[in-house]
Amino acid sequence: MGSCIEETDTPFPRGDSLHLSSSSLCVLLPRITPMAAVPVLKDELDIVIPTIRNLDFLEMWRPFFQPYHLIIVQDGDPSKTIKVPEGFDYELFNRNDINRILGPKASCISFKDSACRCFGYMVSKKKYIYTIDDDCFVAKDPSGKEINALEQHIKNLLSPSTPFFFNTLYDPYRDGADFVRGYPFSLREGVPTAVSHGLWLNIPDYDAPTQLVKPHERNSRYVDAVLTIPKGTLFPMCGMNLAFNRELIGPAMYFGLMGDGQPIGRYDDMWAGWCIKVICDHLGLGVKTGLPYIWHSKASNPFVNLKKEYKGIFWQEEIIPFFQGATLPKECTSVKKCYIELSKQVKDKLGAVDPYFVKLADAMVTWIEAWDEVNNNTSEPNSSNQTNGASK
Amino acid sequence: MGSCIEETDTPFPRGDSLHLSSSSLCVLLPRITPMAAVPVLKDELDIVIPTIRNLDFLEMWRPFFQPYHLIIVQDGDPSKTIKVPEGFDYELFNRNDINRILGPKASCISFKDSACRCFGYMVSKKKYIYTIDDDCFVAKDPSGKEINALEQHIKNLLSPSTPFFFNTLYDPYRDGADFVRGYPFSLREGVPTAVSHGLWLNIPDYDAPTQLVKPHERNSRYVDAVLTIPKGTLFPMCGMNLAFNRELIGPAMYFGLMGDGQPIGRYDDMWAGWCIKVICDHLGLGVKTGLPYIWHSKASNPFVNLKKEYKGIFWQEEIIPFFQGATLPKECTSVKKCYIELSKQVKDKLGAVDPYFVKLADAMVTWIEAWDEVNNNTSEPNSSNQTNGASK
Repeated sequence: MGSCIEETDTPFPRGDSLHLSSSSLCVLLPRITPMAAVPVLKDELDIVIPTIRNLDFLEMWRPFFQPYHLIIVQDGDPSKTIKVPEGFDYELFNRNDINRILGPKASCISFKDSACRCFGYMVSKKKYIYTIDDDCFVAKDPSGKEINALEQHIKNLLSPSTPFFFNTLYDPYRDGADFVRGYPFSLREGVPTAVSHGLWLNIPDYDAPTQLVKPHERNSRYVDAVLTIPKGTLFPMCGMNLAFNRELIGPAMYFGLMGDGQPIGRYDDMWAGWCIKVICDHLGLGVKTGLPYIWHSKASNPFVNLKKEYKGIFWQEEIIPFFQGATLPKECTSVKKCYIELSKQVKDKLGAVDPYFVKLADAMVTWIEAWDEVNNNTSEPNSSNQTNGASK
Repeated sequence: MGSCIEETDTPFPRGDSLHLSSSSLCVLLPRITPMAAVPVLKDELDIVIPTIRNLDFLEMWRPFFQPYHLIIVQDGDPSKTIKVPEGFDYELFNRNDINRILGPKASCISFKDSACRCFGYMVSKKKYIYTIDDDCFVAKDPSGKEINALEQHIKNLLSPSTPFFFNTLYDPYRDGADFVRGYPFSLREGVPTAVSHGLWLNIPDYDAPTQLVKPHERNSRYVDAVLTIPKGTLFPMCGMNLAFNRELIGPAMYFGLMGDGQPIGRYDDMWAGWCIKVICDHLGLGVKTGLPYIWHSKASNPFVNLKKEYKGIFWQEEIIPFFQGATLPKECTSVKKCYIELSKQVKDKLGAVDPYFVKLADAMVTWIEAWDEVNNNTSEPNSSNQTNGASK
């Protein structure tokens, strides 16, 4: 965040300390320059893509993604070759790489589920992550212009969030907007933004029952808004089109145990969303949702999804009240401390719902241990299959 | 609300009770028919307009408002004649009427401030209220179509709210939208909607300092969304374009003591907004914001506004934490009980900020007494100046 963001202990600082207005804040924040000129955060952001197929979808993203480094997490059969279009700078990690790099701790990384993407967050050395699914294409805004989703995510991450009071004109830091009458001046600095959750045109992110009931529903409504999800409110975080500040929240972006050998799937991003929201609320960090849109091309099979989801549909009725009621002690001053504390609460309280949550709680701890191992090592993890520039 | 909305004691009902899906809910809710055919809620909704001038602005609203009954609250000099365009069905109450109808309790109704509008809420006999300022005109949507603001408010009020969990595709009850993956099924019924807060194109609702800093800023962003303000989150409620269910929340829609003889102005709607939100959260009712937009034609004088606002700007730094922390005991099972309890807390806790809040707390009680008197009387209050149909 810009140096103009003071962190305060309380959401409502009192007394006569000077607070910056949003207009002065805008001047102090890093200037967002058009992508065409100098790609913003070029050396500070990795794009993480989980996949099982050739990445032809990158052709459409070339104008926006090519300046950035990609971390591709290959799911499924590691002997399969994933083709990446020419000219992209990428690393590719398959299951053999994950096993080699993490050793026994590789057990915390899901297999045969897009939850494996969080391995990419762990091995990144950058401050920011953008993750996108390989069935997501460039969407157009109502004027017909192609949307640079990454640029909008970066804008979201580099401007503050406002979790303590709702602004009825949505993001007060956007051009042409501000805080409305009645918005406390002491809250207008906002807080650092940890997560930017983007949306999807065309195929909406529905669960299997809704897919089955409304097979033809398409999302065609372009809502021109970014907003902060208020403190104390949980939301269903979708991993399809998601960016975050890895330094602020990375260790909590664990996508859980899903897929092969696990009783559920399609709850990887939900799990991460519940965890990160509780921790962001505790640490005074912001979570935004809204713009940018991507074009989600294909609905997944609702029958397959139902099989993956059905326990989650049942369990979430217990899990969500658990997270709504979760509080972290004030000793938890870092994301990692928060996450370890949350893992204990998961074991204690959700363990009664199903033994799966005991295993998941243990995996949360393993994840943090693996994160530390990978990130404190001086040697970089090597992928089996690394290229730079257009050399592949 | 439609009969399909079960009220439940807890936000998270457990067990095996049957819950309706949103699609079945849509079928059970009252059908919204186009205004041109049969005006929706024609006999169940009053339009309340506070004014000091001739109501020429109604000409533009004629296609949308003419079927409805208007309650005009004339502020300022009662000897002045307010002209209302031909063909509207209205009552007009001036200060003399308010004094005559309420007697000594008229002290709770502000003078020389648009806060006087809440007298109209009190004397209405209808289930729903829409209130609009006389400098608000019909806005156009991005396709150039004139927006029937009232119709959209009615849609908002007749469909449920979702305060317990955020839906990333905004209002799940709109055509083309639904609850996204990960939204708990037990919460998909929603709760009855008490308030619909509409927005403004052109002149945004800024405080005096922001007006002074950004005199040329105009709101031109049409955000095509309606959303529920989550439980536990306060918002700055603007009274310019506001609808509510009078049966559900009416007695809490008190606009406080502002204007003549009071130390502040322009906090009437804010006050009501803080109070109704705390009470709606306690009673399990919903508050929506977003569509519809009106066209706000003229910015008020920022120097005059600053004079009215400056104590409020200071005080709101104490008031908002007070409301954020306010809890109501479970014995408060009705809006009136909640409001009386809140008045006590205002006196106890905000009385220390300024003696004004002691006076305001007393006025809150007087307001409820006056509400009861007016609404339990079998005789209708008579305005000095009542017309029906086009007879004026």
